[in-house]
Amino acid sequence: MEIHAVRPQGRERRGLGTANPEVRRRLLKAAVKIIREQGFPALRIEDLVREAGFSVGTFYLYFNGKADLFVNLTVEHTQWLRGRLRASYQGEGTTLERLARALDVYLDFVTEAEAGFLHFLESGHVQTTAGPLSAWAMAQHAADLRPVLEEGMRRGELRQEDPELLAHAVIALNQSVAGFWLQHKDTHARQRIKQFILTFVTSGLAPPP
Amino acid sequence: MEIHAVRPQGRERRGLGTANPEVRRRLLKAAVKIIREQGFPALRIEDLVREAGFSVGTFYLYFNGKADLFVNLTVEHTQWLRGRLRASYQGEGTTLERLARALDVYLDFVTEAEAGFLHFLESGHVQTTAGPLSAWAMAQHAADLRPVLEEGMRRGELRQEDPELLAHAVIALNQSVAGFWLQHKDTHARQRIKQFILTFVTSGLAPPP
Repeated sequence: MEIHAVRPQGRERRGLGTANPEVRRRLLKAAVKIIREQGFPALRIEDLVREAGFSVGTFYLYFNGKADLFVNLTVEHTQWLRGRLRASYQGEGTTLERLARALDVYLDFVTEAEAGFLHFLESGHVQTTAGPLSAWAMAQHAADLRPVLEEGMRRGELRQEDPELLAHAVIALNQSVAGFWLQHKDTHARQRIKQFILTFVTSGLAPPP
Repeated sequence: MEIHAVRPQGRERRGLGTANPEVRRRLLKAAVKIIREQGFPALRIEDLVREAGFSVGTFYLYFNGKADLFVNLTVEHTQWLRGRLRASYQGEGTTLERLARALDVYLDFVTEAEAGFLHFLESGHVQTTAGPLSAWAMAQHAADLRPVLEEGMRRGELRQEDPELLAHAVIALNQSVAGFWLQHKDTHARQRIKQFILTFVTSGLAPPP
């Protein structure tokens, strides 16, 4: 799926006769490395192309600028994450076991993508050709989760509820608590955060029966 | 509390010998009116000062620019909302009744501030002298909610849980579902959204016992 930033900062992207997926992949990989080390705001196109072994001109054959690069990185990561999440939804087990597996996948992802994920939480509302980027990503994840919740309701493992609202709420909660965790890693262990989300999602504030 | 946008767009704010609270109030009031009618992105300082009956120069005596105006509006609204929420927390009743009252206050607020609230959800991460604006607002609301949750735990009405994490999760859930609601008002009635949040917060996905 091709999504680009609207109102790109910097130069206009030149048309590409034949895009080379390998060049694009190397540019994105170099970006991931620099973002991990320095965060997205500090990323400079000059450093990125040096890391990837290309010229600045080549970068602008593939991306409109820094904002467009971020959109493309987010789209790639979202697709990758969706594949992993869907696999965890499809396995055996109760709905709760599926959600627990998916949560591990998600916490792996945010740990791995830490600087990029935090930048996404802060600046993910950038306008793209598919609407605001964060709303697009949220809708993708909610659409994948929804059938899992619907099946849980059919099985009687979850209460009957509007599955769209419920999927939105669960995804939003995961995202927000994961962001909180990354900023409080010294005081909250990962296993604690996983248990917190699972208990909140399954039982809310209710005391044990 | 005085909070300003960092890296203001536009002119530098001139120092004010004696600020006139009434002038500031009229500028903010005019901004609220224009944002309600046209949304924040469409707001122009020229229109704002015409509405308030001042000159552009006067505006820049009080605000660094549009981003700084938005920070000031958010701070004012957050303080006002906190006062209302704290009052609803302090009344009689069970923890659940308190949370239900607070939720009504919150849904009143987001309905009233609709365009401004949506802009806050999209662009609330603007840097201020108190850190990112949305993180600041979230921390304020979570700090107010925390003692309510702690009292609910002491009373045995809520399960024992880290109150900081729990307060963060509840505030984030309210905010996200409220944003979803404003964008789906045609399909989701307010009463339905209120019930959804309350049930999710109190019981999660658990089926009725």
